[in-house]
Parts: sequence; structure tokens; C-alpha cells
Amino acid sequence: MTTSAHKFSEEEQAGVYKAIYQRRDMRHFIKQPVDAAVLDKLLHAAHAAPSVGMMQPWRFIRITDPELRIALHQLVEQERVQTAKALGEREQEFMRLKVEGMLECGELLVAGLMDRREEYQFGRRTLPEMDLASVACAIQNIWLAARAEGLGVGWVSLFEPQAVATLLAMPEGSKPVAILCVGHVDHFYDEPMLQQEGWINAGDIDNVLMENQWDSASAEQSHQRKRSS
Amino acid sequence: MTTSAHKFSEEEQAGVYKAIYQRRDMRHFIKQPVDAAVLDKLLHAAHAAPSVGMMQPWRFIRITDPELRIALHQLVEQERVQTAKALGEREQEFMRLKVEGMLECGELLVAGLMDRREEYQFGRRTLPEMDLASVACAIQNIWLAARAEGLGVGWVSLFEPQAVATLLAMPEGSKPVAILCVGHVDHFYDEPMLQQEGWINAGDIDNVLMENQWDSASAEQSHQRKRSS
Repeated sequence: MTTSAHKFSEEEQAGVYKAIYQRRDMRHFIKQPVDAAVLDKLLHAAHAAPSVGMMQPWRFIRITDPELRIALHQLVEQERVQTAKALGEREQEFMRLKVEGMLECGELLVAGLMDRREEYQFGRRTLPEMDLASVACAIQNIWLAARAEGLGVGWVSLFEPQAVATLLAMPEGSKPVAILCVGHVDHFYDEPMLQQEGWINAGDIDNVLMENQWDSASAEQSHQRKRSS
Repeated sequence: MTTSAHKFSEEEQAGVYKAIYQRRDMRHFIKQPVDAAVLDKLLHAAHAAPSVGMMQPWRFIRITDPELRIALHQLVEQERVQTAKALGEREQEFMRLKVEGMLECGELLVAGLMDRREEYQFGRRTLPEMDLASVACAIQNIWLAARAEGLGVGWVSLFEPQAVATLLAMPEGSKPVAILCVGHVDHFYDEPMLQQEGWINAGDIDNVLMENQWDSASAEQSHQRKRSS
């Protein structure tokens, strides 16, 4: 066995894995403010994320105006109804799920892609969507740091991006990709909420791991997770 | 100040932030095998990532065939030349950068999006690209866990996705989005390698944070980071 001199201490490692495994996509929050210094730590953690060609394409708009929060919530509510319709036979089941905690969470952030991204070609000539991957890495940093701080985060993507962009005066070329609910929680879900609620089962890791080439049999099994209503 | 009962211990928190801040996008590796049990921990960490509607769209293909590794490297080398040309006046400067460590790293993984993603509408009706965001969160988990294990990770996106898909017999609808170099390193860069090498400066966090609406002045400043060659 080869070990590394750069390895963290056992306690530090435990913290990293605990954050990874106890992090949840939260939709239930308690109405309590988030300490400003902690929010600052989370945003700095985001800004330490990797990005393609170091373009740092993320932008975070903190929503402090209560009316703006309500307006954003209304946009999400509109899309929730549209999504339910698109789900067909699972429409009613979907409508019973709590899919966001925007009115309860202590802090609301809109995360988006900056404008003028076409100026950045490094690592994106054939995969321009790597800019979104970078934003997602930044959000995952927030998610894990928040868990370490004892705070929950929920990533809401139920919205028409152009409607949110217009509401926040975002320029052409930029794009909102997440409404992030950040806040105190009564408890973290023991398992992913959508699994708890019977929407879908977590997949077996063996079905997402392959060697040297695609494995159709494994891939097929991973599609059998959806539960019937 | 409001604190949370769910907060980690100081040591655990320190581990999380240390991983976030000391993680680097590595291109320099030493030729040493990665312990199988550690690789397994990294892949399990990936599978614990959040995903839109819990679709878990990530697939990881471990490359153990040395000839396949060389073939993948050749595809990246082809795209490296194409990217350099696309960069115009910075072509030569780009060609001098070390942009991948595929032939040295202990483990090579191809991360991709599964096929049949159109069956998953939850959180994706208006933002179908959330599947990629989920894969990126999984990769960020690998990146942070690897740092805790003392291992480096580099995300290479310099390739034509269809060429990689063909090489790995990936079905229509699936898509490779990352070639991940995972391995032992002599040392981690003190700062992002592209900054060390004078390619680009890290941006000021103030220029990516806004309140209630887009801030054009901040956004403009963040575009001034590119260094002249």
C-alpha cells in the first residue's frame, strides 16, 4: 500500500467524509438568521472552487429584499406547476412533495453564470458547458462547508431562467442556475428526502462504475430506481 | 449570533476548510499506484453527491488498459493543439503550459453523463443542464476527498467528446465530460497553477458577490484578470 505524506490527520479526514455523507439537499428550514460571518465563510469557500481555465464564472446575488424573495418564490411556484404537468402520471405525487424552503430559510442566494463567457476558450472549445461545471463545484463547496457549520442548503432549479434574470437585472449572456436556500434546520434528513418520500431509490454504486468501456447491463439496472406511485 | 447544534467539531470543520482551500487542479503527478481501497473511498464519495431529482446521472469508467490510456492521451493532445490555435495570440504561451498529467497519474477515470437523461424531468424542465451540475458536484467530492487522502486530482476537458465516447463504446445520449487524473503528487501547488504560470490572476471575491440585482461595475472588473502574454 502506498500512502501519501500529504494525507490529512484522522480527525480532519473524518470531517471531510462526514460533510460528504451527511450533506443533504434541504427543503425544510427553521426561521432563524444566518450569522453574517458564517455566510461570509461559505461564500469564500465557493470562491476557492476549481474552474475551467480559472475563469471563475460564478456570480452570487444575495437576496436581502423581502419583496424580491417573494417574487422569486412566485416564479418557482409557477414552474413547480409546469413541472408537475410535465411529469404526467406522477403529477399529483410531485405536487405533494416539498420542493423548496425559500420563504423559511435564513439566507437566499441566486447563483449564476457570468456574462461574456465566450471570451474564455481554455478547456471549453469542445465543451463550453464546463463553465456550469465550475459553478456547480463552487456550490458543492458551499454545501459541504455549510454542513460543517451545521447549516442546510437546498439547490432549487425549478424556475424559468429568463424570468429570474429579468427580475434581477442580469445582463444578456449571464444566466441564473440555482436558487440556494441556506439556513438553520431542525434536523438533517437521515437519507435523501426524495428517497424518504418514496419518489426514487438511491442507485447501487456498482451500476455507475465501469472499466475501460461502457457497461450496458449496469447502466440499464440504474434506470430501474424510479418508484411507481 | 445564532449557532447551530448540528455544527461539526473544530477539528472536523478544519478538515473541511483545509480540503476546500488546499485542493488544487493538479497536472503534475508522480508515478505511484493509488491504493485500491482509497480509490474506492473516492468513488463512494462521488456517489454521495447531490443530484437533481436524485437522478444520479454520473458514470465513471476506470481506465486500466495501458493502450487505452495512451489512446485517450492522444485525443487530448489533438485537442490541445486545436485549443492553442483558437487562443490566437496566446497560442505559444498556451502550448508551453502543462495541461494534463494523464501518462503519469496513478489512476485515470473518465466521468460522463448517463444516457436516457430525458426521462428525468424533476428540476430539469427549464434547466436540462442540471444533470451536468450533478456530475460536477460528484467530481468535486472526489477532489476534496482525494485532497484529504493526500492525492491530487486534475480535471481535463481538452477533448472532443464524441471521439472519447466512441473510444469507450459509450451509447448515444451519454457524454464524457471529464478525464480525471488521480494520483500521488510530489507537492500541491501553493496557488492555482495557471496563476503561478502567469496565465490568469485569481479574481477578487467582491467582484462576484452582488446584492438583490446584478452589479455591472463589479462584473466588469472581474473580466480584467487575464494577463497579457
